[in-house]
Amino acid sequence: MKTLPFDKNLIENLIREYPTPFQLYDEKGINENLKQLRSAFKWNSGFKEYFAVKATPNPTIMKLLSQHGLGMDCSSLAELVLCQKLGIEGSDIMFTSNDTPAADYHKALELNAIVNFDDLSEIAYFESHFGMMPEVVSFRYNPGESRTGNSIIGVPQDAKYGLTKPQLFEAYKICKSKGVKRFGLHTMVASNELNPDFFVDTNIMLCQLVQEMSAELDIKFEFINMGGGIGIPYLPEDEPIDFNLLGKKIEKVFEEKIYSQGYGSLNLYMECGRCITGPFGYLISRVGHKKEIYKNYVGLDACMANLMRPGMYGAYHHISVLGKEHLPTTHKYDVVGSLCENNDKFAIDRMLPEVDIGDLVVIHDSGAHGHSMGFNYNGKLRSAEILLREDGSNLLIRRAENLEDLFATIDFSAVNKI
Amino acid sequence: MKTLPFDKNLIENLIREYPTPFQLYDEKGINENLKQLRSAFKWNSGFKEYFAVKATPNPTIMKLLSQHGLGMDCSSLAELVLCQKLGIEGSDIMFTSNDTPAADYHKALELNAIVNFDDLSEIAYFESHFGMMPEVVSFRYNPGESRTGNSIIGVPQDAKYGLTKPQLFEAYKICKSKGVKRFGLHTMVASNELNPDFFVDTNIMLCQLVQEMSAELDIKFEFINMGGGIGIPYLPEDEPIDFNLLGKKIEKVFEEKIYSQGYGSLNLYMECGRCITGPFGYLISRVGHKKEIYKNYVGLDACMANLMRPGMYGAYHHISVLGKEHLPTTHKYDVVGSLCENNDKFAIDRMLPEVDIGDLVVIHDSGAHGHSMGFNYNGKLRSAEILLREDGSNLLIRRAENLEDLFATIDFSAVNKI
Repeated sequence: MKTLPFDKNLIENLIREYPTPFQLYDEKGINENLKQLRSAFKWNSGFKEYFAVKATPNPTIMKLLSQHGLGMDCSSLAELVLCQKLGIEGSDIMFTSNDTPAADYHKALELNAIVNFDDLSEIAYFESHFGMMPEVVSFRYNPGESRTGNSIIGVPQDAKYGLTKPQLFEAYKICKSKGVKRFGLHTMVASNELNPDFFVDTNIMLCQLVQEMSAELDIKFEFINMGGGIGIPYLPEDEPIDFNLLGKKIEKVFEEKIYSQGYGSLNLYMECGRCITGPFGYLISRVGHKKEIYKNYVGLDACMANLMRPGMYGAYHHISVLGKEHLPTTHKYDVVGSLCENNDKFAIDRMLPEVDIGDLVVIHDSGAHGHSMGFNYNGKLRSAEILLREDGSNLLIRRAENLEDLFATIDFSAVNKI
Repeated sequence: MKTLPFDKNLIENLIREYPTPFQLYDEKGINENLKQLRSAFKWNSGFKEYFAVKATPNPTIMKLLSQHGLGMDCSSLAELVLCQKLGIEGSDIMFTSNDTPAADYHKALELNAIVNFDDLSEIAYFESHFGMMPEVVSFRYNPGESRTGNSIIGVPQDAKYGLTKPQLFEAYKICKSKGVKRFGLHTMVASNELNPDFFVDTNIMLCQLVQEMSAELDIKFEFINMGGGIGIPYLPEDEPIDFNLLGKKIEKVFEEKIYSQGYGSLNLYMECGRCITGPFGYLISRVGHKKEIYKNYVGLDACMANLMRPGMYGAYHHISVLGKEHLPTTHKYDVVGSLCENNDKFAIDRMLPEVDIGDLVVIHDSGAHGHSMGFNYNGKLRSAEILLREDGSNLLIRRAENLEDLFATIDFSAVNKI
């Protein structure tokens, strides 16, 4: 059963200030979730969750998360610059990218971020540009056929990311020879996974590698980063991952593979985005049109510009009709946006209460990979983002785009030159 | 065999002015293509192609096309405003949208555009907002099961667009009763279709409907709009649609169904985007990285921000390596971008000549649904657009995005409020 942390009345008040559609983030939900996460992993004194900035690259959200002690997982120059503007630097940033431009590395170095290299060749690339290595060096492991990826991310051997096992040994050996003394190990083999045992297996894999490589190369690892990929219950019947249970299971892995082996301390890092903000974001939209042809349609004032996942991946996002949450779902609709693009549908054959024009509709779980994936196709504008504070007040944390933004890169004078 | 209208030398000169990646449009190719199109349909004195602005919403490109007599097919307020800025109005705009906001209709009315309604309910919606009907009224027909759509657009009965046949009769009847005197009929049942007979069938369908509805409702149609959907040869082995052949085939339909039936004049409209600009756009990018793990990768400085189709649809786009166009394709690569998104691949298992870091790569057929579909996911920036003039000079028609553009909607002061 999906619930809402607000009612129709609150949204109607908000709409007086901000027109639909907009993304609404629930601060209270984010805060409570992070308390549970921290508690579940307090057995590891160096535990750190690096928030995958790409999920929700909004500086106010990032600040909120950093107040809980979260670091930032950055994948690009833009995300590093956002951190810089917030005063986040050093080991509070892990820079995990691929096919990385030198300018991005330059910013990572300037911010003293932990650099997580994606390939063996990146050592030479980095050195050729900067004449040095970062203080802390990590590599991304791609286990290939030795590990099945989950259904969303696909099989590791087809993924463009990371190093093979022999390359990994080679990479740390080279870095050691260059004088690097501080090491980490990273992987990422799942996306939106709801089975906790998947992450247990990932930790077993990484801890074994740490043991093997430490012994063979005589180096000490400061951390393993198990990556992100913890899923969220998009479907009403999905069960969320229990952080506490997951923490206990991974603690057991650390006991067996690290602590009882005399390895000493090893920090556990993760880099989730979805499970940090996903369930606490809501796309608020209004029904503008209904049509009945071969199927019945409900047309919203939101579209793929505001949430790409259903149209792009066929992903399920739950939909509530405000004020009708407790009515029986007696009507079958396709819930669509206004793009001239056939897959601009938020839901296909979805059972809902009877919907009327003017109804306010909430699309759940849009708090990660929602606003950040929006495009301007068909000249559609990306929406505002609003933070619903714990005290019930609201804070505009990103204004809606306007036509001036859309046309900002056009030089209309070029038109007169042809 | 895919060819290029420029060589490595020209691109290297361009790059001194504009860093990669960028979209390059070939004016000569566009001009020659449009001459062929016009010639193929000159048998219909009212023939008009309305360019699907969403394909390439760049005002300089739009101006270039309008100089050839093309109208503009707009689907949103933003696209209508682009027309307004160019002085394009009246019957040079066909406004075809769905789930349409009142503000968009308002602009269409202001510009005196031909309004193409998507649903029966839109008559009441429009009247309730404006107290009148547009001077020229068209409806979009969705043939449902009576017509198979093509493989790209899917079956018509699952598409959100248009009216059923009974609704169509009802719609024109209502409009006639409201005093509307000028009518058109529209459909769109294909996307990227390379079989000319598909469009012949569409014209037969529309001409028959015109006959039926004219007789039953005693109204006269000024035009039929066969929609867009003419495909382009993305694959080297694909054959382009021969405009001349298509024109002759459709002329025959008009002879049989319209002219020989004493119907008088009937304008033929179409609203293609892809076949107008698609083959004449090229995404120019440079190889920044290579990696060899379980597969061999070539990493570009372009990514899904610049061209979504391969990642989003698995679409094929041909790739040339500049200066190596005539070398044998001996190496198999995945050609990828730098997004932390697994499907950020321009090509999978593509045979190319051996690629070196620093090579310039051309991704073909990016002139439609290329730049316009780009997103900013991972904080990536959308590229510049450059027009390669017939005389060999170049014109910057859209500058590249920068971080200030990316952060334009963020109010960083909100950060201090939490």
